[in-house]
Amino acid sequence: MLTVLFAASDANWAEYAAPLRHAFAESGLDATLTREADPQAVDYIVYAPSSPLQDFAPYTRCKAVLSLWAGVERIVGNPTLTQPLCRMVDPALTEGMVEWVVGHTLRHHLGMDRHIVNPSRLWDPTCPPLARERPVAMLGMGELGLACARALAALNFPVTGWSRTPKQGTGIPCLHGQAGLEQALRTAQIVVTLLPKTPDTENTLNARSLALLPQGAVILNPGRGALIDDEALLAALDAGHIGHATLDVFRTEPLPQDHPFWTHPRVTVTPHIAADTRAPSASRVIAANIRRGEAGEPFLNRVDRTRGY
Amino acid sequence: MLTVLFAASDANWAEYAAPLRHAFAESGLDATLTREADPQAVDYIVYAPSSPLQDFAPYTRCKAVLSLWAGVERIVGNPTLTQPLCRMVDPALTEGMVEWVVGHTLRHHLGMDRHIVNPSRLWDPTCPPLARERPVAMLGMGELGLACARALAALNFPVTGWSRTPKQGTGIPCLHGQAGLEQALRTAQIVVTLLPKTPDTENTLNARSLALLPQGAVILNPGRGALIDDEALLAALDAGHIGHATLDVFRTEPLPQDHPFWTHPRVTVTPHIAADTRAPSASRVIAANIRRGEAGEPFLNRVDRTRGY
Repeated sequence: MLTVLFAASDANWAEYAAPLRHAFAESGLDATLTREADPQAVDYIVYAPSSPLQDFAPYTRCKAVLSLWAGVERIVGNPTLTQPLCRMVDPALTEGMVEWVVGHTLRHHLGMDRHIVNPSRLWDPTCPPLARERPVAMLGMGELGLACARALAALNFPVTGWSRTPKQGTGIPCLHGQAGLEQALRTAQIVVTLLPKTPDTENTLNARSLALLPQGAVILNPGRGALIDDEALLAALDAGHIGHATLDVFRTEPLPQDHPFWTHPRVTVTPHIAADTRAPSASRVIAANIRRGEAGEPFLNRVDRTRGY
Repeated sequence: MLTVLFAASDANWAEYAAPLRHAFAESGLDATLTREADPQAVDYIVYAPSSPLQDFAPYTRCKAVLSLWAGVERIVGNPTLTQPLCRMVDPALTEGMVEWVVGHTLRHHLGMDRHIVNPSRLWDPTCPPLARERPVAMLGMGELGLACARALAALNFPVTGWSRTPKQGTGIPCLHGQAGLEQALRTAQIVVTLLPKTPDTENTLNARSLALLPQGAVILNPGRGALIDDEALLAALDAGHIGHATLDVFRTEPLPQDHPFWTHPRVTVTPHIAADTRAPSASRVIAANIRRGEAGEPFLNRVDRTRGY
């Protein structure tokens, strides 16, 4: 019988207790999930930084700390953590992101908003162009960006990927570097920002780069709030140069009630829902890693402490 | 030299004359496109029901009537029409339909409307389920229905197809007959109606079949207005049993200004834009069929009079 300590918030417990137990049973693991245990009896720790647990030293028998979160920046530097640490890589997170990006791309492509809100009962059968006539730029070609680019390309959108360093073999035309960014933006009617947050990517969309986009271009940001210079975006929206921005992430979340994004007629706010870890699939990932640990197989998504992720 | 009679409205002529002539030249057809000709000299008729031409009997030499429209219900019952009749199957029409259906499916799946119109600035980060948890029923598995079903399945939606007669080899689980319809509706959270309009398909969604759907189900109708009993749909929307209906086609178009669909909070009207025939690609289809006729090959998309489509 394995002892699995659940070290995360009450809200996490409410969400994860049943799915984790279900996933353990499904994987044939003989494991007890508990919120309190003698540290020396604990075999695995399911962890989120919302937990008060900060000293991992007493957990001498613990074979791995399994993070509920994809980002481990709040735990990876903890000097008491000597056990293997695994990030959450939830396949559902990629699926959810693809659904949000494809859905909002099609929303803007089809011009849905004028039908969803149409108090004057206007019947204007002007057809939108076909997707094959609507170029999309995907800024960021990591796991999420690439999955979104492929889904859009499958719907005939001409997608150009962009990443800071060259990226090949993706099946999507891909530019890189500063010159490549400028080239990608000049023709894009829809721009999706899915870059990681680093000092180099902050304000990737700023007054200068926004000006490169054609008149009426649409911005979708499901990545990180800091990728966009908010003031520059508002100015470009006010000027009518940018047609619309649909934003899922912000520098401060929840987005403050007095932020101009809430009331701007060309901005749609979605409340950081583009990609969420889902308890059932995340629980299956954790169960799979415990099973691997017990079978002596290497853990999946193990954090490399020298890189920090 | 072939004589091709263009029998459709002035607006159609303005849109199609140049693309058709271009397509004839591209296909190497020695053909004259005209709006007036001695009936006995006409080799082919390009037709839309907007034309005054109703008596096909004098066109004794005509080898085929090539419809500009996908739906042929306004011509198929004409007793003077003894020539082969071909429906328009425009690849651009299929693409446009797939974009409308996938876009509005994702819109409802993601619950976009509450973010697009959010005057109270509500930040509610409740995530939608994943597409894989959102069953879709595709009523009608012809060329358009099948293309939409495949695009939705590629985004992980569990799609169940339904057609009046059995359909196999599509790669999509497919039910048929009345019992199959009831089975498809019982679990569908989103229903797409893409059936042809025939006496058998009128009011496919009526009080009885709508009642089979789970609470909150969403209806998308890009097919034909007559597929749905409007009064039964309004009653089911008022009762809250149906969560929303997004309708692109109506029994009378443009939808009359006093129709309750315009103001119902659970209805979105789109102005018959889901699938528009695009002149350049439709003209290539017509040229290809004339070329086949001249080569003695069977026509593409020939209407089966016994089925009515």
